[in-house]
Amino acid sequence: MGFKAALKTVSKMEDSEKIIEKLKFNDDGLIPAVAQDITSGEVLMLAWMNKDAVKETLKTGNVCYWSRSKGELWRKGEKSGQTQSLAELIVDCDNDTLLLKVKQNGVACHTGRKSCFFSTAKNGELVENQKVITPPEELYGE
Amino acid sequence: MGFKAALKTVSKMEDSEKIIEKLKFNDDGLIPAVAQDITSGEVLMLAWMNKDAVKETLKTGNVCYWSRSKGELWRKGEKSGQTQSLAELIVDCDNDTLLLKVKQNGVACHTGRKSCFFSTAKNGELVENQKVITPPEELYGE
Repeated sequence: MGFKAALKTVSKMEDSEKIIEKLKFNDDGLIPAVAQDITSGEVLMLAWMNKDAVKETLKTGNVCYWSRSKGELWRKGEKSGQTQSLAELIVDCDNDTLLLKVKQNGVACHTGRKSCFFSTAKNGELVENQKVITPPEELYGE
Repeated sequence: MGFKAALKTVSKMEDSEKIIEKLKFNDDGLIPAVAQDITSGEVLMLAWMNKDAVKETLKTGNVCYWSRSKGELWRKGEKSGQTQSLAELIVDCDNDTLLLKVKQNGVACHTGRKSCFFSTAKNGELVENQKVITPPEELYGE
């Protein structure tokens, strides 16, 4: 399904509470969410959501995570502009993991790379598999 | 990179200890691992690994997780035959999540579907987005 078709799905996700009821959150009230670029299929990142984050994501169509380090809602791209538009929210067989198919606006990684998965294990070393597209100073600078 | 080319990568991953040293495991000694089909790009599942699971996976090239419910190493496909052959192991920017590019032999999900992510949120309901390929009784039966 392309992004335009998928957007229709989002607009129909009005009943976020019914989805949230089906999900299994961990002891910290969180569920892992894997973001995948709906166009390229590239896996972009893994982050965590609490109930409020799932609710906001389903309501707005803009992906919102829970920042474990800051202890607050993390509206992806709020500072950097590198937002994620939700196309589909998919639940796994155990109802304890989410797959978010998204349109990634710009880059997903705070290092300025498209995906956070840029270090491939090879000969006991981690080898960079992608280049910086937008330098962090452009993403977070004045 | 195709699977045949990628297999070469695995054979060079002899120094698993050096990779494990770089990873951040959580308080339970675990790290989440996302498995993605290297051919189709489909996200298949998310499971967890401890150090021994990472080590075994890198050494054998067959994906081995840690079963949180059973508290033991989970050699994927050991009973069902639906093994995952590792092509690439990729680490994220925080060194606390793994992306496994794999050749999925058969189906990844215990329900007999290719991927565990088969329930799409739509109108407050979870709608099946893929069919069973191999019934569970064939996977786990006598």
